Amino acid sequence: MEHSLSNDALREWYRERGFGGRVGFGQSPALLVIDIARGWLDPSTSIGSDQKDMLENILAVLRAARSADVPVIFTTMGGLGDSDEVFDLKLPGSAADVRNPELMQLEPILERSPSEPVLVKPRQSAFFGTRLVGQLIGLGVDTAIVVGSSTSGCIRSTCEDAFNNNLRVIVPREAVGDRSVSAHEANLFDIDNRFGDVMPVGEVLGWLAARQTSGGGAGDG
Amino acid sequence: MEHSLSNDALREWYRERGFGGRVGFGQSPALLVIDIARGWLDPSTSIGSDQKDMLENILAVLRAARSADVPVIFTTMGGLGDSDEVFDLKLPGSAADVRNPELMQLEPILERSPSEPVLVKPRQSAFFGTRLVGQLIGLGVDTAIVVGSSTSGCIRSTCEDAFNNNLRVIVPREAVGDRSVSAHEANLFDIDNRFGDVMPVGEVLGWLAARQTSGGGAGDG
Amino acid sequence: MEHSLSNDALREWYRERGFGGRVGFGQSPALLVIDIARGWLDPSTSIGSDQKDMLENILAVLRAARSADVPVIFTTMGGLGDSDEVFDLKLPGSAADVRNPELMQLEPILERSPSEPVLVKPRQSAFFGTRLVGQLIGLGVDTAIVVGSSTSGCIRSTCEDAFNNNLRVIVPREAVGDRSVSAHEANLFDIDNRFGDVMPVGEVLGWLAARQTSGGGAGDG
Amino acid sequence: MEHSLSNDALREWYRERGFGGRVGFGQSPALLVIDIARGWLDPSTSIGSDQKDMLENILAVLRAARSADVPVIFTTMGGLGDSDEVFDLKLPGSAADVRNPELMQLEPILERSPSEPVLVKPRQSAFFGTRLVGQLIGLGVDTAIVVGSSTSGCIRSTCEDAFNNNLRVIVPREAVGDRSVSAHEANLFDIDNRFGDVMPVGEVLGWLAARQTSGGGAGDG
Repeated sequence: MEHSLSNDALREWYRERGFGGRVGFGQSPALLVIDIARGWLDPSTSIGSDQKDMLENILAVLRAARSADVPVIFTTMGGLGDSDEVFDLKLPGSAADVRNPELMQLEPILERSPSEPVLVKPRQSAFFGTRLVGQLIGLGVDTAIVVGSSTSGCIRSTCEDAFNNNLRVIVPREAVGDRSVSAHEANLFDIDNRFGDVMPVGEVLGWLAARQTSGGGAGDG
Repeated sequence: MEHSLSNDALREWYRERGFGGRVGFGQSPALLVIDIARGWLDPSTSIGSDQKDMLENILAVLRAARSADVPVIFTTMGGLGDSDEVFDLKLPGSAADVRNPELMQLEPILERSPSEPVLVKPRQSAFFGTRLVGQLIGLGVDTAIVVGSSTSGCIRSTCEDAFNNNLRVIVPREAVGDRSVSAHEANLFDIDNRFGDVMPVGEVLGWLAARQTSGGGAGDG
Repeated sequence: MEHSLSNDALREWYRERGFGGRVGFGQSPALLVIDIARGWLDPSTSIGSDQKDMLENILAVLRAARSADVPVIFTTMGGLGDSDEVFDLKLPGSAADVRNPELMQLEPILERSPSEPVLVKPRQSAFFGTRLVGQLIGLGVDTAIVVGSSTSGCIRSTCEDAFNNNLRVIVPREAVGDRSVSAHEANLFDIDNRFGDVMPVGEVLGWLAARQTSGGGAGDG
Repeated sequence: MEHSLSNDALREWYRERGFGGRVGFGQSPALLVIDIARGWLDPSTSIGSDQKDMLENILAVLRAARSADVPVIFTTMGGLGDSDEVFDLKLPGSAADVRNPELMQLEPILERSPSEPVLVKPRQSAFFGTRLVGQLIGLGVDTAIVVGSSTSGCIRSTCEDAFNNNLRVIVPREAVGDRSVSAHEANLFDIDNRFGDVMPVGEVLGWLAARQTSGGGAGDG
């Protein structure tokens, strides 16, 4: 191990070794809105913290996606049971919150339409134990725009599984959040170097607006 | 976001909120040896760094596992092709190394026996695009001891997918490694709080030795 | 192709070539109750037929499993949306029924307890797009007893995926059903030769009763 | 159960209930060539039978696909080990053949180019325990043309998993084969009614030829 690599040095080292290339937008995106439910937004729960700025940015991306006819898929968590002893042991606080259906309801401010699916996932990644990969194939998607929380948990895991499945991953930096700024930054760094392009939310909004004006990409043909 | 949470504060915050519980060993472990091939151990490649201490510790765990009749499964990477444009764009250095079969050969010092499987994985997690989960069910495994490299990449991802599948995850701290000590520590922190128990390698060696003496656990019946 | 192979000849041919061996019960079973909802039991729907005898046998197996502390998992179908155009084109009748939540409600006569999970699957196999494999690992299961409907659809597919994951598959013949006796028999033949042991329901009830008396198998320790 | 449903009656019943709709070709196909290795083509093995006509038709489809720049993916079987006891018990003949690497080598007459992947699958479906789904996403595929053997085993399973993932499935009838004509016909019937469109090989060749002339579909842009 190179014992002295600081974050800046690691960034440089990654650049030299060919990590962190740019993937860019494809032709047919979907928007994944991860775990925007009361449990994660209420600082009084085990899993929650104050995420008001993030929520504003998510709503902006959501409006832009809907205007550009980009399909939207929501997630929350649930379905824990007798088989989840390992989860209960490792994450007793989260386990209690996830078992509370009230905390797992999507925020009403998202104004989900009935045609926008909500996946109930048992773990962090939106792909694990769900039908998401088949849904994305059915929609002809090649790009996943990922927003929501938490950067160091469900966001990172979802980005990794999207990347694993050869989707282009885009993360609007101000539309994901975490309870800790250090965990937030460390995981944005890993995501950008390994799984997808982290960029300012304005850049994503601009791309969606251009797509709307032009009448959509190849996926809308 | 609680903008001022340092790592120590986050550790405390996690403890209060019920992250990082202890899972412990189950009754029927397997040892997963992740990506101990020349590419990751040779500092002159894109993906490699000097990992001599880690390798010594892996060999110790490997000897103890074999003595205790714990099944061993190895991984390396490979199989990239025309479908992997996204991987090529994001990780051009890794992509070149993974396409070089010589760099992906397991280290001979591991002395793999023909009955110990080697999985060729296309991405970081040993579970993605492989048959590992079925193999673990077929072996009646309830615990995954994970060693190898890199902590911030394949180790973290493999631990997460093992946890997702309700396996007890054990990481002997000195038997995993990374090219950066900061990435190593940050990801051990996340693994320990979210996916599995990080512990001194001596504790794992002790448990395996006790298992050997007692003639194995329930899985050997 | 051996153009003249009748079913009897194929049975003989399979035996000679080493198909259709016996797998037997393991030590730690789960009972999978597949798609016992109104849609499949009501002859007036697209997917339904009269299955009264099958239902009686399922209830007997269910009682025996609960008495022997064998975990029970139910499935139904649901969650179709805009991404399911291929399903809508190939199976328009089923698609309409599956989109009708009333038809997808489990039969009340099953008396599901809240601790018995119900998985909402998007396709035939209980493993596809669900978290079933992780649940079975979490429960330490090595054997899947499969009952429900339809033999030529969801039952066959579920048996195949259970077999793929190295689970021992047991099918009590009179506790699975199909709208067509020819499709029922043809698929029981394939299941028995390729995926699991098809046996009289009485044999399964006897094994469960013996397990109850003995205080359960190794999985209960 | 409607005890008297013959195959013809079942066909009629299926039609009335909305099974067996037409899916058709999409815009971006891939050709999956399933298990064309010596083991399945040599009548002296446990799994083999004489399939000369099928092989001629597969070669015709393969030539047409390559001429039309349709990506080709091959499969064979392999990788069995200590975890596969259930497979060994249920299919002892197949298990012995699959453990013989010589029988699992692709037929040289396929003239696979190095850029055409070959997936080593542990079970029937080309999707189970492999990275196929990610490869198809990376290639932007919406249609799977499936050829090879055996109709009642690997072909049916591969068609089902492709359908599950919302791919359009096309089966050129004379380019798939089975050791038994009855199993062949029964499974083509199920595939056509549940998973994909079974059509004369000439229709597939014609579609591929038209695609070649027109310079390819949307996927080539």
